[in-house]
Amino acid sequence: MTSLSHQRQQIANDMLCLDDFRPRELLVKMNVEELCTTDDPADNLEYHKKLKDEEKRFVVRPTFRPDKALNILRDDYNKCVADLEKAVGYSIASYDDLCKALVDRMDYFEEAGCRISDHSLEGYVYMEDESAATQDDIFSRRRNNEAITAKEAAVYRSRLLVFFAANYHKKGWIMQLHIGALRNNSTKRYESIGVDSGFDSADDFSYAKELSSLLDAMDYNDNLPKTIIYNLNSKDNTTIATMLGNFQNAEARSKIQLGAAWWVLDHKRGMENQLMSFAESGVLANFVGMVTDSRSMLSFPRHEYFRRILCNYIGGLVENGEYPDDEEMLSEIVKDICYNNIKNFMK
Amino acid sequence: MTSLSHQRQQIANDMLCLDDFRPRELLVKMNVEELCTTDDPADNLEYHKKLKDEEKRFVVRPTFRPDKALNILRDDYNKCVADLEKAVGYSIASYDDLCKALVDRMDYFEEAGCRISDHSLEGYVYMEDESAATQDDIFSRRRNNEAITAKEAAVYRSRLLVFFAANYHKKGWIMQLHIGALRNNSTKRYESIGVDSGFDSADDFSYAKELSSLLDAMDYNDNLPKTIIYNLNSKDNTTIATMLGNFQNAEARSKIQLGAAWWVLDHKRGMENQLMSFAESGVLANFVGMVTDSRSMLSFPRHEYFRRILCNYIGGLVENGEYPDDEEMLSEIVKDICYNNIKNFMK
Amino acid sequence: MTSLSHQRQQIANDMLCLDDFRPRELLVKMNVEELCTTDDPADNLEYHKKLKDEEKRFVVRPTFRPDKALNILRDDYNKCVADLEKAVGYSIASYDDLCKALVDRMDYFEEAGCRISDHSLEGYVYMEDESAATQDDIFSRRRNNEAITAKEAAVYRSRLLVFFAANYHKKGWIMQLHIGALRNNSTKRYESIGVDSGFDSADDFSYAKELSSLLDAMDYNDNLPKTIIYNLNSKDNTTIATMLGNFQNAEARSKIQLGAAWWVLDHKRGMENQLMSFAESGVLANFVGMVTDSRSMLSFPRHEYFRRILCNYIGGLVENGEYPDDEEMLSEIVKDICYNNIKNFMK
Repeated sequence: MTSLSHQRQQIANDMLCLDDFRPRELLVKMNVEELCTTDDPADNLEYHKKLKDEEKRFVVRPTFRPDKALNILRDDYNKCVADLEKAVGYSIASYDDLCKALVDRMDYFEEAGCRISDHSLEGYVYMEDESAATQDDIFSRRRNNEAITAKEAAVYRSRLLVFFAANYHKKGWIMQLHIGALRNNSTKRYESIGVDSGFDSADDFSYAKELSSLLDAMDYNDNLPKTIIYNLNSKDNTTIATMLGNFQNAEARSKIQLGAAWWVLDHKRGMENQLMSFAESGVLANFVGMVTDSRSMLSFPRHEYFRRILCNYIGGLVENGEYPDDEEMLSEIVKDICYNNIKNFMK
Repeated sequence: MTSLSHQRQQIANDMLCLDDFRPRELLVKMNVEELCTTDDPADNLEYHKKLKDEEKRFVVRPTFRPDKALNILRDDYNKCVADLEKAVGYSIASYDDLCKALVDRMDYFEEAGCRISDHSLEGYVYMEDESAATQDDIFSRRRNNEAITAKEAAVYRSRLLVFFAANYHKKGWIMQLHIGALRNNSTKRYESIGVDSGFDSADDFSYAKELSSLLDAMDYNDNLPKTIIYNLNSKDNTTIATMLGNFQNAEARSKIQLGAAWWVLDHKRGMENQLMSFAESGVLANFVGMVTDSRSMLSFPRHEYFRRILCNYIGGLVENGEYPDDEEMLSEIVKDICYNNIKNFMK
Repeated sequence: MTSLSHQRQQIANDMLCLDDFRPRELLVKMNVEELCTTDDPADNLEYHKKLKDEEKRFVVRPTFRPDKALNILRDDYNKCVADLEKAVGYSIASYDDLCKALVDRMDYFEEAGCRISDHSLEGYVYMEDESAATQDDIFSRRRNNEAITAKEAAVYRSRLLVFFAANYHKKGWIMQLHIGALRNNSTKRYESIGVDSGFDSADDFSYAKELSSLLDAMDYNDNLPKTIIYNLNSKDNTTIATMLGNFQNAEARSKIQLGAAWWVLDHKRGMENQLMSFAESGVLANFVGMVTDSRSMLSFPRHEYFRRILCNYIGGLVENGEYPDDEEMLSEIVKDICYNNIKNFMK
């Protein structure tokens, strides 16, 4: 009995060793090999660099997320440009300067290990109007705090998005598009605690034609990068899953992918629906798998949740006689979806 | 054998006792404790009062359903106001008078036991335009049979809806919103047998932003009542289920609820989808349960249908290992959903 | 052993008998009784006639598909009219002439065995505007290569569609409406290999009100033919399935039908969803069953795929206790859906 007490004490001591529960140790415990953060183009990535020197057990890569640069109507747009100027060390006096600065930041991100970009498309997906003002004109007016119409802002965002895509394609980066969040629904909460505080939900607008035009604009000059598209409303699974086939090519296996069930959809049924939609209109074995969007250290178990749901789905197909009862072959598919595919896709 | 014949005759006699099949006896047979009708604000609730005196075995409550007062473009709007004038016993010469009269009728309904309101939102959910005419101006023009634009009518309805919500909140009433019926589709039938004759179906418009704005307008000044939102098109489950979380607060358990599968959706799959949507984005155990919208005496067995589908759903979760195999705890959940929650919600 | 080698040789010889794999023999092997092609109104149906004389083992019927005549904005509209003129042998100088010619072609098709029409509704379903120009005015301007607005073209198409419906109704033909394809998404592929080359997907626009107005316009004067409506986006199942009930009448069992899962939806889950939607809002036993839209000789096994999914669905209902375990009765339902219903529906 004294021996047992002693053992218990040992266990308690081990558990109390708080250093084991620091972020890096948690990542090691969870077998994380690579992790991608999301970062503004102006970010100096200081801690990414430090970590790269200090930590050899896993890799943390930045993700290029230029949402601020795309939303020209935001109050802080000029501050965003000023931050960029500071980051690149030269003045941004025209749209061409802006594009140069953004490409320079992409190079900077790439040196820091970046292989992926991310964009949130809200309200609409794409809008071109060739009769609208030029990018340089819209940009200049915004810099001078002159009026920009909502439509001009939409056209501006869309053209800049196509510009980004061409550069991602050149670099072999992955482009992620997250479509359909409806943000800051509670004005009361927005006023008291600000943006991204949990008062968001799924929008329900239609965007098949816009998504088609966006991908087509990128694809027409062979500038469509490897792309993952995430929808937030389950009603849009058919739309996106069938859209992708219009733009696949030999640059990568399932170069355009339906993204993992995202945010409000990353529950069991949402994940199953995403897997079925992927399998119905593409090659399930090519799927690059789960992403946790929550950015919290404790969200890694959702990868395990995803893996179980994936195995349960495939097991069900075997039981129904729809997939062969060949564990070796199926385990390859599962390993590819959960590990190998994303590694290859990121190359 | 004579004894058996005799018994049969007895049973037949019992069955022929038609008094046992009168409405009130049917309600008693079906263990109805409380039943809510739907009523126009001008209704004098005469039979509700009589029944309250005569019948102690169950309670029949009115439901406040002011659809006519909200639809200012209807041909019978001035008649609707005249009916209200008669009901309150004073002249309604302004929008303020109208509001006063409607509040007086809410008080009258409350005395008759009313705890719930109901609204049908068709075509759109919410529209505000601060540059539009005032409520009093729109109301006055309508009273004088002057032109009102469709947009003015929409703004008018939306503002009046926010006014109603504030009063429901004050009284602790439940607000029900039924969204998305497409009515009177067959002109031939409409001309021959009129409205609400069965030629209605599910609309498919998008309304996430509008629903957000409506609930936000009610919530901003802490005037959002306990609310149940019913969708008629299965494509809208994600939209509504995820919207509710933006506006929950501590005033009631799951203060804003996704309503039971309604009308064209109250079949097995529709009910299962509603339960899953509720569970995925909220706390299933808080669901206030089934409503039969059919208003017919023989629709009560749909509550039994719902209860079986609910138990089947929960049983499936247990079999899958997703819910604990704890009959005592689960039976509490079932009893709450089927009986206790709505009683508490109505308080 | 020599005997076995001999047998093998025999089998190989049989397999090499290529005449057995010519189109007609394949149809016979697949037990095809009747097959419907899709044809332009100006088609002379030469091969239909020849086949009718030569081949008695099965029937090949034309399907009347006047998409070109409906799309007045197409570059080849005047060529389409010229083809019609050639087919009918007289000049088409007015909209009345056009209508006469189209009816003459319907008669011609009917003589060749036609019992069905087909239409692709893209972008929108129906648009009437009584203040718009007359059909004759729009037609004349188009003939003179004068400008037609997009809205005029939409109104023109819608009115002509109602005209077609009235004639189908008179003839007892079936009208098929395929709603929601988004075509030619890849400009690059369109420029290199043209239309209908596989770069199409599912659109996601809303059309409940439009579909209601279209069917109502046809139904109002008792001119709504037997109709099958196919949706391409799974989000629209509720919309269409519930819409049909507004316009059923005694002219045929389930006169208006939700069509079989179509194109991008004709996978297992899509077919199951279609069957469930049909059963939830109508009488499953009246369903006229599977159509393969692929127009390829090797697509006939999809009928077998459909039959297995149907039987699996019904078997599941029996196992759940939702359908009676009465094989005789159920086999009647399956035979009706897979064979008898469409024969009766085409009469």
